[in-house]
Amino acid sequence: MKNLTTLKELDLEEITHLLDRAEAFKQGEKKSYANCVFANLFFEPSTRTQNSFIMAQKKLGIQDINLNPEASSIKKGETLYDTVKTFEAIGVSGVVIRASEVRYYEELVGKLNIPVLNGGDGAGDHPTQSLLDLMTIREEFGRLEGLKVLILGDIRFSRVAKTNIEVMRRLGMEVFICAPEPLKDPAYDYIDCNEAFAKVDVAMLLRVQHERHEHRMNMTQEEYLTSYGLNKTRYAEMQEHAIIMHPAPFNRGWEIDGDLVESPKSRIFKQMENGVYVRMAVIERALDHA
Amino acid sequence: MKNLTTLKELDLEEITHLLDRAEAFKQGEKKSYANCVFANLFFEPSTRTQNSFIMAQKKLGIQDINLNPEASSIKKGETLYDTVKTFEAIGVSGVVIRASEVRYYEELVGKLNIPVLNGGDGAGDHPTQSLLDLMTIREEFGRLEGLKVLILGDIRFSRVAKTNIEVMRRLGMEVFICAPEPLKDPAYDYIDCNEAFAKVDVAMLLRVQHERHEHRMNMTQEEYLTSYGLNKTRYAEMQEHAIIMHPAPFNRGWEIDGDLVESPKSRIFKQMENGVYVRMAVIERALDHA
Amino acid sequence: MKNLTTLKELDLEEITHLLDRAEAFKQGEKKSYANCVFANLFFEPSTRTQNSFIMAQKKLGIQDINLNPEASSIKKGETLYDTVKTFEAIGVSGVVIRASEVRYYEELVGKLNIPVLNGGDGAGDHPTQSLLDLMTIREEFGRLEGLKVLILGDIRFSRVAKTNIEVMRRLGMEVFICAPEPLKDPAYDYIDCNEAFAKVDVAMLLRVQHERHEHRMNMTQEEYLTSYGLNKTRYAEMQEHAIIMHPAPFNRGWEIDGDLVESPKSRIFKQMENGVYVRMAVIERALDHA
Repeated sequence: MKNLTTLKELDLEEITHLLDRAEAFKQGEKKSYANCVFANLFFEPSTRTQNSFIMAQKKLGIQDINLNPEASSIKKGETLYDTVKTFEAIGVSGVVIRASEVRYYEELVGKLNIPVLNGGDGAGDHPTQSLLDLMTIREEFGRLEGLKVLILGDIRFSRVAKTNIEVMRRLGMEVFICAPEPLKDPAYDYIDCNEAFAKVDVAMLLRVQHERHEHRMNMTQEEYLTSYGLNKTRYAEMQEHAIIMHPAPFNRGWEIDGDLVESPKSRIFKQMENGVYVRMAVIERALDHA
Repeated sequence: MKNLTTLKELDLEEITHLLDRAEAFKQGEKKSYANCVFANLFFEPSTRTQNSFIMAQKKLGIQDINLNPEASSIKKGETLYDTVKTFEAIGVSGVVIRASEVRYYEELVGKLNIPVLNGGDGAGDHPTQSLLDLMTIREEFGRLEGLKVLILGDIRFSRVAKTNIEVMRRLGMEVFICAPEPLKDPAYDYIDCNEAFAKVDVAMLLRVQHERHEHRMNMTQEEYLTSYGLNKTRYAEMQEHAIIMHPAPFNRGWEIDGDLVESPKSRIFKQMENGVYVRMAVIERALDHA
Repeated sequence: MKNLTTLKELDLEEITHLLDRAEAFKQGEKKSYANCVFANLFFEPSTRTQNSFIMAQKKLGIQDINLNPEASSIKKGETLYDTVKTFEAIGVSGVVIRASEVRYYEELVGKLNIPVLNGGDGAGDHPTQSLLDLMTIREEFGRLEGLKVLILGDIRFSRVAKTNIEVMRRLGMEVFICAPEPLKDPAYDYIDCNEAFAKVDVAMLLRVQHERHEHRMNMTQEEYLTSYGLNKTRYAEMQEHAIIMHPAPFNRGWEIDGDLVESPKSRIFKQMENGVYVRMAVIERALDHA
């Protein structure tokens, strides 16, 4: 039984193997787990991650149960631990969890006989998002090592940024980071956004997470886009082979000009497509090492 | 790939073909679409339409994903377009959508590689409801042309009424319309409700959509029922062969006396039954013309 | 077609047969109902009962539809009766219902051609919970008759307690009841909690249903646990072979010391596991006597 809580626990060989398996599923490899049921427990809103896990489950012949926290015993005060133990007791083969507490999985790991797959823990990690980002980049360039990546925007509140910075550096990628002052995480060094776009292979934008900010930044949408987003001027400065990525959902007009979402350099919807295959690989890893 | 957004786009031959296919499914014809997943995106409450589409999908061997808007990225400000593109990206074969904006589908059609089936657009259209109404009438009388239909009640806010009036007149049916003053749509002529019941083959009642009215009408429930609903006196005036229909949900005691919901003339639950077969036909059309 | 509304309607032979069937399913017996769909209509929050019914359905090859009341026509004022008739009309093979009105099923029974399985009616009954309790006890002791059971806590608001007291006494079990003054139901006699634990085979704790109480009891958590809950002192007084049960969700620290939830005497998660098999038996009974 193999959990997936944070990519930090996976060595480079394991990560490469997961990407290879995702690619194999994308090329049409079939696999079926009969009589398996997964429970998807999303305590924070999700469209992409939850439904992408559901699609991955269906493609693997796994049935899905989706908890609506508002209609569950969570409303009666039941803890996350007791909720997950309940799903284990009724016989599910694995759980996918998104919760707002960073490292929520620490109270679960070691106490369950079924794998936990992390669909996002607050401002902590989002391992399957990073894997699908890596898959999309590798698919584009045929390699990861040596590539230059710009990650810009809401670094402070973004679990996607944190997970990606760590794993990309470990994979030998050169990561440049740019953020407005109130959205900086002091753990990182930052560069000037104006210099960044022209020199990178990948520009990875992040969503302004309005719902996590206590107060809105002191910037208009237009100012944010010009200073910390991707507008048409910056798009034109990018190298011919360079690509744009975004974990989505995106705020059209904030971190990205709406017209650029489906521009030739954009791989945003390709990322979503790849997310299904990456999650198939993660589920396979969880079940085959039972 | 064939969308179904409004019946106005279907000629009479296509409509007849859909009704024939629905009838064939009702008679037991089987069809199975393996490895297909549909996403049902209902942004307004629904019991009948959503669950009837789900049943149709299951009967066709299609798996269903049901978005809970309250737990989705819609809560983070994601647009309808970006939400639907997400489901396309993760590989669903089609989407069923209900949304409050009239003609919401205009921003989708032509930009997707999967069919959009309209489950209701605000006060705009409700094509599958009309199709199941037509199926139920044709099943009863063996034909549509020449039949007299009364549609009465909340014409102004009813997408069902608008869709039915247009298609029924096109099919050569005689449509009489009756509504209280504040619920009239100036596009139509109206008759006196008191004269109407005795002369029609079909009396189609509409729900008083309390939730769409800014202020309640200046009528008690009793007054509404007597003036614009179906009470026992009017029921007795109807012709022997005449039937009652209602798209449901109904307000017992407002537009229909509660005792008449399951009366001999009522086809209300038959309509719901037929809805599943009509939706199978609509899905078949969407997928077979891919 | 066999409803399951309250255990009072089942004679001892039927109850024993259901427990035998549940045990057979637990031992691996397979059964498959092709082309069957069940609708789970939970109008009150549930984690265990709803998901356990879903697992039972999936294990029997039955597909599940799960109504989200917040996104249904209930929001437009549709009644329970009309909602259930809708699911019958669209072709489901059975419905599982949880609703807050005691004996809600009386308006349904006799008017439907599909079975109704009660997943809890307010402070009324919870038949499948009692069955899984009985299964867990019988599995432990090899019999039911003659066993001594303590039921303690929130007797007044607990449908689990009421259902269990009735059926256990009918089965020849000796039931002791203990409750704080404001949570007593005058229908029963009560014993002193301090004397009870040492002499019973089964101690069945009940959740303090904070959400059903108009005003909180005049007790701290610590006082409740010491007087009416299971703390470590009382645990130590229990007989060696005795077991602890709880229908869950539990309030750790109120009716049970959190450390005892997974103690050697606890069968709490075993109860959940058995719930799936009991519900398979109940569904089999509903469909095989169609």
